[in-house]
Amino acid sequence: MDMKVNPDLQKERDSRTFDVDELSNVIYENGERRNRRKEIAKYVENTPVLHRDCVPFQTRSEQYEAALRRGLKVFEFADECSWCKDDIVALLQMISSDCCFVLHLGLVIPAFDKLASDEQTAKWLPLCMQLQVIAAYAQTELGHGTYLPKLETTATYDTSTEEFILNSPTLTSMKFWPGGLGHSSTHAIVMAQLWVNGKCHGPHPFFVQLRSLQDHRPLPVVKLGQLSADGVYTRRGSEKSGMRRWSNLVQGAAQIARATAVCAGSARRGGPGEQESQVIDYQTQQMKLFPWIAMTFSFLFLRKHVEEVYNARTEEMNEGNYSNLAELHSVSAGLKALCSEQAWQGCDAVRMACGGHGALTASELPGIADYAKALCTAEGENTVMYLEAGRHLLKQLAAVRAGRRVADSIQYLGQPAYTSDIRASAEFANPAKVLKAFEGRAAAMIRHVALRMERCAAAGARDAMEAYDLSSVLLVDAAKAHSELYLLRAFAAGVATLTVSPHLARIFTALLTLQATYAITRSSGQFLQAGVLTAEQTQWAAEEMLQTFTVIRPNAVALMDAYEHPDVMLNSVLGCYDGNVYTRIFESVQKEPMNKSEVHPAYYKVLQQKLKNTKARL
Amino acid sequence: MDMKVNPDLQKERDSRTFDVDELSNVIYENGERRNRRKEIAKYVENTPVLHRDCVPFQTRSEQYEAALRRGLKVFEFADECSWCKDDIVALLQMISSDCCFVLHLGLVIPAFDKLASDEQTAKWLPLCMQLQVIAAYAQTELGHGTYLPKLETTATYDTSTEEFILNSPTLTSMKFWPGGLGHSSTHAIVMAQLWVNGKCHGPHPFFVQLRSLQDHRPLPVVKLGQLSADGVYTRRGSEKSGMRRWSNLVQGAAQIARATAVCAGSARRGGPGEQESQVIDYQTQQMKLFPWIAMTFSFLFLRKHVEEVYNARTEEMNEGNYSNLAELHSVSAGLKALCSEQAWQGCDAVRMACGGHGALTASELPGIADYAKALCTAEGENTVMYLEAGRHLLKQLAAVRAGRRVADSIQYLGQPAYTSDIRASAEFANPAKVLKAFEGRAAAMIRHVALRMERCAAAGARDAMEAYDLSSVLLVDAAKAHSELYLLRAFAAGVATLTVSPHLARIFTALLTLQATYAITRSSGQFLQAGVLTAEQTQWAAEEMLQTFTVIRPNAVALMDAYEHPDVMLNSVLGCYDGNVYTRIFESVQKEPMNKSEVHPAYYKVLQQKLKNTKARL
Ligand SMILES: Cc1cc2nc3c(=O)[nH]c(=O)nc-3n(C[C@H](O)[C@H](O)[C@H](O)COP(=O)(O)OP(=O)(O)OC[C@H]3O[C@@H](n4cnc5c(N)ncnc54)[C@H](O)[C@@H]3O)c2cc1C
Ligand SMILES: Cc1cc2nc3c(=O)[nH]c(=O)nc-3n(C[C@H](O)[C@H](O)[C@H](O)COP(=O)(O)OP(=O)(O)OC[C@H]3O[C@@H](n4cnc5c(N)ncnc54)[C@H](O)[C@@H]3O)c2cc1C
Repeated sequence: MDMKVNPDLQKERDSRTFDVDELSNVIYENGERRNRRKEIAKYVENTPVLHRDCVPFQTRSEQYEAALRRGLKVFEFADECSWCKDDIVALLQMISSDCCFVLHLGLVIPAFDKLASDEQTAKWLPLCMQLQVIAAYAQTELGHGTYLPKLETTATYDTSTEEFILNSPTLTSMKFWPGGLGHSSTHAIVMAQLWVNGKCHGPHPFFVQLRSLQDHRPLPVVKLGQLSADGVYTRRGSEKSGMRRWSNLVQGAAQIARATAVCAGSARRGGPGEQESQVIDYQTQQMKLFPWIAMTFSFLFLRKHVEEVYNARTEEMNEGNYSNLAELHSVSAGLKALCSEQAWQGCDAVRMACGGHGALTASELPGIADYAKALCTAEGENTVMYLEAGRHLLKQLAAVRAGRRVADSIQYLGQPAYTSDIRASAEFANPAKVLKAFEGRAAAMIRHVALRMERCAAAGARDAMEAYDLSSVLLVDAAKAHSELYLLRAFAAGVATLTVSPHLARIFTALLTLQATYAITRSSGQFLQAGVLTAEQTQWAAEEMLQTFTVIRPNAVALMDAYEHPDVMLNSVLGCYDGNVYTRIFESVQKEPMNKSEVHPAYYKVLQQKLKNTKARL
Repeated sequence: MDMKVNPDLQKERDSRTFDVDELSNVIYENGERRNRRKEIAKYVENTPVLHRDCVPFQTRSEQYEAALRRGLKVFEFADECSWCKDDIVALLQMISSDCCFVLHLGLVIPAFDKLASDEQTAKWLPLCMQLQVIAAYAQTELGHGTYLPKLETTATYDTSTEEFILNSPTLTSMKFWPGGLGHSSTHAIVMAQLWVNGKCHGPHPFFVQLRSLQDHRPLPVVKLGQLSADGVYTRRGSEKSGMRRWSNLVQGAAQIARATAVCAGSARRGGPGEQESQVIDYQTQQMKLFPWIAMTFSFLFLRKHVEEVYNARTEEMNEGNYSNLAELHSVSAGLKALCSEQAWQGCDAVRMACGGHGALTASELPGIADYAKALCTAEGENTVMYLEAGRHLLKQLAAVRAGRRVADSIQYLGQPAYTSDIRASAEFANPAKVLKAFEGRAAAMIRHVALRMERCAAAGARDAMEAYDLSSVLLVDAAKAHSELYLLRAFAAGVATLTVSPHLARIFTALLTLQATYAITRSSGQFLQAGVLTAEQTQWAAEEMLQTFTVIRPNAVALMDAYEHPDVMLNSVLGCYDGNVYTRIFESVQKEPMNKSEVHPAYYKVLQQKLKNTKARL
């Protein structure tokens, strides 16, 4: 289907005030990767088995079969590109990770690197990479998600046979969740309590065969696949490994939604006037979309920053220096929660901004939003993550007060209460001033929690645990405030180091200002309670936020164009490059099998009888 | 399935501090209706065709057929109960309106009362009620949703034949949305621009035949079903009629989610300790659930209040007094938006509070949340509704300033700026003081918008329209603040007039206080900017909110039990009365057809070939 670009959308592109190509280069950093990404997009376009436009109209069984085929194709591609990680990630993004074997690829294969001995790796890794065995990651049980120490599944070492006996004795210990892999996997990494000589050593991962390799039937009893005979695992790195993943995931989910909505928004008209106004011209509509464009770019710079930190820490740890691990862990917990939460809220907001069309499955928006929601629960439930980050902050506050050294990113906890000296709305475009305000607010909130815990303890809380729980709602807020600060800092630092044309710099300033003022406006009460801003200042922030809309308005579509997300990736009737939304919707509806016949079979079974008396009477 | 109640849930029920029966009587007002509702629940339980537990595991075609059968059953029931409106509404609530012919029943049949002549009604109403014709409500077009004046479909009166020619000439004019009815409906109420003698009279409803009554095939050309020959319609009441509906809808959607989540939450354990703690004991978990319990009760009293207002206004209008119509319209627009928005946010929050289990289709939570989201878009898109309410408030502010009489509910706009005299957290349990604060905040916000519009105009906005648009984000917030005030007032007034036991009164006080303090905490910035509360006072509000948790905690389950929502209605593996969540989930998973065979057929088609070389090598 080759269509002329919708004139409204063309107008949007023509109104941009910056060079899209320049921005694309900022986004993809080096030209080589950008080109490679384009090649991979072409590859997907030319490979029908990877397309997903029919998914909404398939039965679950058909969806499963198609996802299997896509999964095989991904592994074929992985072989062809010699397992180049960047290439594989790019390919997965192009198909929204919507294929079988994703966890086998993204969790199980890397797990050998982190969790297995060299001998184990030598045996299993090639089999995994060639899809000769397919494994799931089975940690969560029906009754146990977040709190792993209580997992019920046991792995008991039998000294006589030198084997492990795995046992899920109860309903609640049933492994529950490893999704679509349930049908395809031959093996699983099973998290189980390790028992040796009557002593429990806590949860350990076991590689277990689940299905016959002969006929794919589940084994009569789940037995241990021989992974290691010594019964001890070094759990090296398992906690670090989560770090990279969420940032990629969230990125993908967030951006797609933005791109889709902006394009759709621009092409939609509705309202009074000779020619109806474009709905994106309404300030309320901009309010629904633009903050999420800014968020998308903040995630971009955060990812870059996190990669740097991650590499630096890995190097340190390779040299035996683990002193920054707790900080890394806390930062990644808080940011995991913040980013997935923002992705959830952003995807939903953007979906709602598309009106009824956003509810269509073929808009892809409901699916993207569901994905974002899953991110909030999986890989560390968000509230639990915020609490983890929060507890670390409380410890650091104590450390600061005791005069101990703390990481750069939390030294602000030691500063005295801060009152902003911003004197006009335009000063909210000054990153240094704004960051000071964010620091002041986060510090005040963390101190407030600490104080409240002391008070609860003084007022007779049973124990420290109770004092902590009685402050946990506030602690979540405080951890979030810290994470927002961290995100904004990474965004500001990223923008500050760019060398770009003045045109593009102006856009980045607007995006950064929007990100900051939007956060202030949403949580103005916290800035006011902290005494960091006055009521007048928060109102200036809101004014400045609306002011950025005028900079972003003519560039909204071009900003998302710069991501170069091809149609085959967005997979949405609303988000196509040509913006011919109505034609696409109409064509998509034709694919619904229920629309293939003029009269649904159920008519003959159910309705005909009922309606048969009508005719005589009309 | 008859199971013992889960001990954790039983413990919850035993810990309640009030009489559930007393509360049920408050909820259902008269004992007769409460009993009738129970009879209807029994009827649904005993009528398998009405059950929906298999829906997640059916194909779309099977779902359609089952929904058709449920629809026929509903009409059978309607005949049996002689079209008693309350009975029909109760039945629909029991099946979440998840059946065919819902719009035929809820929109089309009532439309005859409001839109058609006596002659038309005499002919068509009996046919509709006996399902001899089945109609959809076709207003939205592919290109036109909110702004109806721009509908493209035309109905041209042909004076020679005395017929109307209906025409949807373009892609964008295609009627798009009347959902599942597309396959079953023989007719539709089509909104079209009426043209007579070359003059356009704006959108009017036409009753149009779509399908052959012989064989159910779509008619070759969509022609006019003879509805009226004179070409003029009195659009009596069409604007009022929306009023009742949203309140019912929102009610249903909101409550179900609450009930489900609370039950599930109570039975879930996870965390340190000998026996793991119940997750509902965490303050953060209470923060996710309890405000929505309060919201549920606020909706209850709002509905009662709205019914009274509606009846009073209808009486006035029957006597020819239309003076309160604009006010009624504005209130219903703002409350429609607020209630559906809260339902959306509440359903999502509660779903997330259930962790991974909340993502299961069989938890019903994703479906309930989607339904709530649809309510935000359909029947008046929420932003557009807030703007409508907001414009009315601006007019009323002008009226107040000009000394003209305004409705009681907005007289507060004339009061001077207000500063709360609350001196301790406990005073946030005083409804009068709290309502004053809500009034002060809403008034300040509306005044702020008015001022800003003046400034924009002075600063050279092209016209009033532009000045208005430049303030529309703030106007939406202001309209929401007013609607929150209205909701809280209705809640407070409802609670004030109750005569209940002290035990129950204590609960209602806690719920009302929670509703108020939660709203303050969420929007503390607005109260601070308005100068109504100080930073310290907003922190007291947050403290008082947490305080209410201790009252609600032992009563959470009992509060939702009082709604007497039977299992067949909640239709959720998480929300069953017996709380045996894990057994239910396990049983539900068995119903998935893909789990019926041990090896999925796709294995033979796709995987076998790939895996066949493995065995030799392990
Ligand atoms: C789409 C999807 C895919 C998944 N894939 C996999 C997979 O491949 N393999 C796998 O092993 N698992 C998988 N999971 C499971 C996932 O890891 C768990 O859902 C997650 O760990 C959360 O646990 P839970 O569902 O038991 O929620 P719970 O931990 O029961 O959370 C329920 C509620 O309790 C609260 N809560 C729990 N503990 C605390 C606490 N200590 N303090 C305060 N509040 C608390 C939470 O905040 C939440 O509101 C998947 C989940 C989803 C949704
Ligand atoms: C589940 C479902 C069932 C439905 N069933 C029916 C049915 O049976 N019959 C039927 O006729 N229709 C039905 N509809 C359609 C529904 O009535 C429309 O979706 C609704 O009127 C909104 O219109 P829209 O989708 O065109 O959104 P739009 O009006 O295009 O809204 C898109 C965006 O533009 C913004 N916007 C639009 N106008 C303005 C303005 N003036 N000022 C500021 N912002 C504006 C909105 O806020 C929104 O963010 C259904 C919709 C859904 C989701």
